[in-house]
Amino acid sequence: MLPPAISWVEGHLRLLDQRSLPTSVEFIDCERAEDVAVAIKTLAVRGAPAIGIAAAYGVALEARTGRSQAVAACDRLALTRPTAVNLFWALRRVRERMETVPDSGLFDAVLGEAAAIHEEDREGNISLGRAGADLLPDDCRVLTHCNAGALATGGHGTALGIVRSARDAGKRVKVYACETRPLLQGARLTVWELVQDGIDTTLVCDSMSASLMSSGRLDAVIVGADRIAANGDTANKIGTCTHAVLASHFGIPFYVAAPLSTFDRSLTSGDAIPIEERSADEVRRLPSGGMLPDYYSIWNPAFDVTGASLITAIITEKGVILPPFGEGIASLLSRQEV
Amino acid sequence: MLPPAISWVEGHLRLLDQRSLPTSVEFIDCERAEDVAVAIKTLAVRGAPAIGIAAAYGVALEARTGRSQAVAACDRLALTRPTAVNLFWALRRVRERMETVPDSGLFDAVLGEAAAIHEEDREGNISLGRAGADLLPDDCRVLTHCNAGALATGGHGTALGIVRSARDAGKRVKVYACETRPLLQGARLTVWELVQDGIDTTLVCDSMSASLMSSGRLDAVIVGADRIAANGDTANKIGTCTHAVLASHFGIPFYVAAPLSTFDRSLTSGDAIPIEERSADEVRRLPSGGMLPDYYSIWNPAFDVTGASLITAIITEKGVILPPFGEGIASLLSRQEV
Repeated sequence: MLPPAISWVEGHLRLLDQRSLPTSVEFIDCERAEDVAVAIKTLAVRGAPAIGIAAAYGVALEARTGRSQAVAACDRLALTRPTAVNLFWALRRVRERMETVPDSGLFDAVLGEAAAIHEEDREGNISLGRAGADLLPDDCRVLTHCNAGALATGGHGTALGIVRSARDAGKRVKVYACETRPLLQGARLTVWELVQDGIDTTLVCDSMSASLMSSGRLDAVIVGADRIAANGDTANKIGTCTHAVLASHFGIPFYVAAPLSTFDRSLTSGDAIPIEERSADEVRRLPSGGMLPDYYSIWNPAFDVTGASLITAIITEKGVILPPFGEGIASLLSRQEV
Repeated sequence: MLPPAISWVEGHLRLLDQRSLPTSVEFIDCERAEDVAVAIKTLAVRGAPAIGIAAAYGVALEARTGRSQAVAACDRLALTRPTAVNLFWALRRVRERMETVPDSGLFDAVLGEAAAIHEEDREGNISLGRAGADLLPDDCRVLTHCNAGALATGGHGTALGIVRSARDAGKRVKVYACETRPLLQGARLTVWELVQDGIDTTLVCDSMSASLMSSGRLDAVIVGADRIAANGDTANKIGTCTHAVLASHFGIPFYVAAPLSTFDRSLTSGDAIPIEERSADEVRRLPSGGMLPDYYSIWNPAFDVTGASLITAIITEKGVILPPFGEGIASLLSRQEV
């Protein structure tokens, strides 16, 4: 049974510490927004929807103390990670809710909003999962990258939610999980999460997807997203663009699975999406436990941008968007706002 | 100063142990062919040309004892690794030489042939390097994968030999080295080798080449090869095909650098090249020093095949072959045989 990645327990936020998986299952109890900020920054909690949910609960922890503390928490949490837009979306939603209530009702309102964001994300994933499952053949071999699963969301998952929904609909699904260097979220989280659920999963290195595709072993690639621009350009974990180019070359459908909270209509294209660069030490660590020498120069971008032209469809909780994406995205987002 | 990967010292074969680089510089002294077979199988010596050279010296170690021992050594060494054809090419060359001499001259003849293979490879790399350097602009950013350097050859290197020759010709070369999962030959060997030579090098994960290409940071991709079929299809370290597809997509030239000993004219296409699959434990080892769980299913092919249509040019010690490759390869190989 998969433990919840995020839960509100006895007045505080409990996070599954994703850094220690799969070796051990540990939890972090956050009492202050700063604890949540550190957990997001150090990847104890990660995945675009999950960091939005965790941040919303983080504001609730401070709303108990007062309005100015809650506002300061919003500002602090917004500084943790730059690429996933769900973080800013969730903080904006909480802040707007705060403006509608008096101080006396602040904590209940913020906690209620955080719980609503959490629950809506989980429910949305179920809808998204069903919509995506309909696109897959009855016997299906799927490649995924990084972890866009229950651990990365409010539950069920986006890319892995589609896998779960397909299995629940009686389809036979085999997953190839890319290990996802440098932090191995695919190896550590995706395989662990799917094996817990009894789903047939094989781990490969990121560099092996071309071999899977050229030997006819894949029917689809499904990935999550950290930010989708108005034209459909999609930022996701580093390595995603590679699988998209390969899928296009080998004639395999490439699906992006993401809730509407991942869309950023303020950006006309992916060129404007800020890409987080992380510490070189993430690459420097050797499997022997040793480190590469300090004099090594290392570049470590955490995300890349996949051009919309490489994407077969974007699967959301409100339905599937087909190319050209600009119109479909605008239409779904404005329906959302009504 | 780079230590030699392979040397004949005081009657035995000395190999630089490439498994312990860059953390420590250690050597293995081989007294028997079996020592060499183990060194090849466990990757203490690796790189297509280097394993051919090491195997030839391995036969010499047994030729001291007698003809039947030398023949048995050929058979044993041929079983170490299946993909790189240089191994079989070198063993065939040694065996043909053995047939021309009486027992009394066997050791001298085999050792002489091994030394000739070694020296010809090093000299060939210099010619290959010059031919390749001519193709590069004066200011050049090159991506390479795995290690096709001095450590993988008789000296100078194939892909990295081109980098060295370009630098020696006064060109400004910046190298991006892909780490090359799972065994990190790029991180451990290529960066170390190039930094020893004062060449500007930055390490990236294999999944980052798309980001380098899409942001205009690359002028060429240059890789080595383990076996090239008669039509130009090229087997090389797993991940190579990915960079080739990306280079084609982003309009960047993709060069294969290999001596003629890497060509296998008996195979009409890359489909027939045997691809070594290695132990899952190579992927299982975590950078923390821990291991992924035993219940994980893992696929670990060590090589992939890049289709000839993705290759801009094949650079050899006898000149540059342009597409369509079939004719150029046949012509170079038959000139070689005259």
